[in-house]
Amino acid sequence: MADTTRILARYVVNARPEDIPEAVVHEAKRCLLHWIGCSVGGSREESVACALAAVGELSGPGQASVLGRKEKLDITLAAFINGISADVLSFSDTHPQTLIHPGGVIGSAALALAERTPASGADFLNAFVLGYEVACRVGLSIYPWHYARGWHITGTAGIFGATAAAGKLLGLDEKHMVWALGIASTQAAGLREMFGSMCKNLHIGRAAQNGLSSALLAGKGFTSSNHSLEAPRGFAHVLGEKPNFDAITDGLGRTFEILRNTYKPFPCGVVIHPIIEGCIKLASPNRLAARDIQRIKLRCNPLVIELTGKRTPATTLEAKLSVYHSAAAALLAGRMTEGEYSPSSISNAEVLALRDKVVVTVDEKIREDETHVAIELNGGETLSCHVDHVIGSSGKPMTDQDIEQKFRGLTEPLLPKARVNQFIDTCRNMTRIDDAAVLARLAALD
Amino acid sequence: MADTTRILARYVVNARPEDIPEAVVHEAKRCLLHWIGCSVGGSREESVACALAAVGELSGPGQASVLGRKEKLDITLAAFINGISADVLSFSDTHPQTLIHPGGVIGSAALALAERTPASGADFLNAFVLGYEVACRVGLSIYPWHYARGWHITGTAGIFGATAAAGKLLGLDEKHMVWALGIASTQAAGLREMFGSMCKNLHIGRAAQNGLSSALLAGKGFTSSNHSLEAPRGFAHVLGEKPNFDAITDGLGRTFEILRNTYKPFPCGVVIHPIIEGCIKLASPNRLAARDIQRIKLRCNPLVIELTGKRTPATTLEAKLSVYHSAAAALLAGRMTEGEYSPSSISNAEVLALRDKVVVTVDEKIREDETHVAIELNGGETLSCHVDHVIGSSGKPMTDQDIEQKFRGLTEPLLPKARVNQFIDTCRNMTRIDDAAVLARLAALD
Repeated sequence: MADTTRILARYVVNARPEDIPEAVVHEAKRCLLHWIGCSVGGSREESVACALAAVGELSGPGQASVLGRKEKLDITLAAFINGISADVLSFSDTHPQTLIHPGGVIGSAALALAERTPASGADFLNAFVLGYEVACRVGLSIYPWHYARGWHITGTAGIFGATAAAGKLLGLDEKHMVWALGIASTQAAGLREMFGSMCKNLHIGRAAQNGLSSALLAGKGFTSSNHSLEAPRGFAHVLGEKPNFDAITDGLGRTFEILRNTYKPFPCGVVIHPIIEGCIKLASPNRLAARDIQRIKLRCNPLVIELTGKRTPATTLEAKLSVYHSAAAALLAGRMTEGEYSPSSISNAEVLALRDKVVVTVDEKIREDETHVAIELNGGETLSCHVDHVIGSSGKPMTDQDIEQKFRGLTEPLLPKARVNQFIDTCRNMTRIDDAAVLARLAALD
Repeated sequence: MADTTRILARYVVNARPEDIPEAVVHEAKRCLLHWIGCSVGGSREESVACALAAVGELSGPGQASVLGRKEKLDITLAAFINGISADVLSFSDTHPQTLIHPGGVIGSAALALAERTPASGADFLNAFVLGYEVACRVGLSIYPWHYARGWHITGTAGIFGATAAAGKLLGLDEKHMVWALGIASTQAAGLREMFGSMCKNLHIGRAAQNGLSSALLAGKGFTSSNHSLEAPRGFAHVLGEKPNFDAITDGLGRTFEILRNTYKPFPCGVVIHPIIEGCIKLASPNRLAARDIQRIKLRCNPLVIELTGKRTPATTLEAKLSVYHSAAAALLAGRMTEGEYSPSSISNAEVLALRDKVVVTVDEKIREDETHVAIELNGGETLSCHVDHVIGSSGKPMTDQDIEQKFRGLTEPLLPKARVNQFIDTCRNMTRIDDAAVLARLAALD
C-alpha cells in the first residue's frame, strides 16, 4: 500500500487515552505488571551482569532506573538493560499470532523515557497500548515467512513498538512519527541463531534502546524515508516476502492486538508449554522416577522441534529451549520453575537419564497450544494425556490472580513485600496516577 | 563451512603488525587519512547536528573526540557521531567488489576506543587492516544478492569490521572474538530505502557504535552463537542467498582486500563518477550553457539508474544520489565539488532546465567504472566522450598526492593549516608513533 507507514504513524499520533476500550486498558495493566515482574525477576542473571559490566561505565546522566537493582543509568542504557532482564528468564508475554514478546521491548523504552519526560498514568498506558499495536501489526505483515527465515521477530518488529510508544510520549507529530518509524525500520535486527545465548536477550534490549533512540532522533529532525515499511527496498520487502500491508492498517483503532496477549506459566520457550503441562499432570498423581520409565513419547506441532530441539543443553539458556530437558525435568519435579532450569537440574543424573528417553514426533495437525504425552513404563503400562489448550494460551488464559501470583513469585525474593503490594496497587490504579515513572522507582532498589 | 566464524576470528586474533606487507601498511595509511578527512569535512552537516542534539546529552564520560568539533563524548557515542560524519558527504572510500565504504565504519570504532584503551600506531594500523579485511570478506560472501535485496552493505557487513578492529585493540582471545563477531552479526542492519535521507549516514554510525559495543560486551563474557556467520539461521543465510563462505576464509593473511580500496574524486554516489568525469571533460573546452543543449545522452551500467535514478532531488542528500542533477551540474560548472550539491545549485534554474534534458540508457555490457556521454547541441552537432576507467577507480587510482589534496580540501576550512600538516605527517609516520589517539586529538577542535 502506498502510504502504510503514514497511516500507521497518523493513528499513533492521534489516538487518545479516552479512545481505548476498558478491556484494552485492563489488559495493558496486566501486561505492564507482568513485564516488570519479569524484569525484576531477571535482574540478577548473568546476561544483565555482563551487559552492565561492559557498558555501565559509559552511561550518561543517571536519570532512569534499572529494574530490580540499585544502578541508575541514562535513559537509553536503562532501556537496554531493562530489555535484557525482561527476556532473560524466557518468561515473557506472547502475542501468539506472531510469537512476538511485546511487553519488555515496549515497556523498557517507554518507562525509561517517562523517568525523564513526565507522563501521566493514562498517557503512559495509551502509549504502551499503541506500541503493542504497532509491533504486532508490523509483525503480522511479515509473519510467518520472516520468522521461518531466521529472524527473531521480537527484535525486528519489536523496535517499531518501542519507537511508537516513545514517540507518542514525546508528542511527535505525524511527519516526525513517520521518520521515527523509518529510523527504527533501518535498525531492525536479531537472528534466531542466537537462541540459547545471551544475544537472545540482547535483541530485546537493543530493540528497546534503539527504538527509544529513533524517537529521540526524529524529534530533533533526523530524517528517514517516508515509506520505510512499504517501499520496494523498505522493511517489509527486504525482511519479508509478499508482505500483507492490510494487516498493518485494517481496523486501526477498532481492533486491539493486546487483547490477544498471553502469559507464560513456565519460564521457557512457549512452544514447550503444552508438553510441560502434560508432564506435570501425569507426574502429580504418579510420582515417577527415571528408572520406572522406558520412553516418553510426545506428539506435537513441528515448531517444537524447530525451536526447542536441543538434545543436550549445557546452560540454563539452552535448557529453556530444550523440549528434552523440559519434559524430563517437569515429569520428575511435578512442577516447572526456575529451579528446574538451574545448573544443578541440568546436570542432575536422573534428569539426564530421562532426557535421553524422550522421543518427539511432529504432526502438522497438532496446534501450537496442544500436545499428546504418552509415558511407557517399564512394567508395560502406558500413562497418557492430551493437552488441548495449554494454561496461559488464548483458550485458557491466566487470570488476574494468576498474573499477580506470578509477579509476586518473581519480585518477592528481591523487593520488600510492602513494595510489591504497593506496586500491584499502583498498576491497578494506573489510569489515575499523575506520574508513570513511579512504577520504575517502586521496582528498583534505593 | 562448519567453522567459518572461528577461522575468521582466529585469524584476527593471531595476526601481528609485522605480518602485514609494506604495500598494505601504505594503503591503510591512505585509507585512514582519507576517512578522517571525510569526517572532519562532514562534521558541520545537518545529520551530525541533529544526532548530537538528540543523543549528545546522554553521553557518558567524555573520553573520545568528535572529529572536526569541540565536543567530547563517551567512546560509543563518539563512534556513532564520527561514523555519521564519515558518510554525510558521500565522499567515502569504496571497496568496489562489494560497494562497502569501509574506512569510516572501522576507523570510527577503532579510534574512539584508542582514546580510552591506548594503542601504538602499528597496533592501530594492524587492527584497522584486519577490520577492513573482515568487513569486506563478510560482504563478499553475500554480494551481490544481499545488496540487490535492499541491504545497505556498509552497515550490515561494516559492523563486523568495526567489531574485529575493536576486539583486536581490546586483545580478545579466540573464544571472545567469536562471540564478538556473533554479537555484531545479530545487530547487522540498514536498508537501501534510506538512501537520500539522514538514515544512510546513521547506518555507518550505528555500525561503528554497535560494532565497538559488541567487542566490549564479548570482552565481559556476553555470549553469542559460535557459528553466527555460517549457521542455517545465521547471518549469511538469513541476509544472503547461497553464501560463498570460501570468500571469507580463502587466502586469509595472504591476500588483502584493502589493496583494492578506491577513493572518490567527487562527493556523491560512486556509480555516477564516470558520468561526472565525462561531463567535466566535455565542459572544460566547450563552456556550454543549458540553452545550447538539446539533450544529454548517457549510456551506463544498470546500477546507475537503480541507485541514483532520482529525477527531481530536493535536498543535498538526494542530489548526491541523482545522476540527472549530477550530470547537469557538472556540465555547467566544469567541476564537481560540494558547491555543485548545495541548495542553491539544486534550485538553480539553469541546472533544473538541463537536468530535464538528461536521458539515461542502461547497458549491461558497460562496466560500473565506464560510461559513454553524448551531448546533442541545438545546432545539430554532437560532442561525445568515452570514459573507460573513471578517476579513482582501480584502473586509474588516486595518487598519494591526490588523497592529500583531497584531505586538505576537506579539513583546511575547519582546522588550522599547521594542524593539517601535522596530521598528514603523523599519518605518514603512523607505524612509529606510540599513541594512535593523537590522530583523534589533532583532528578535533580544542
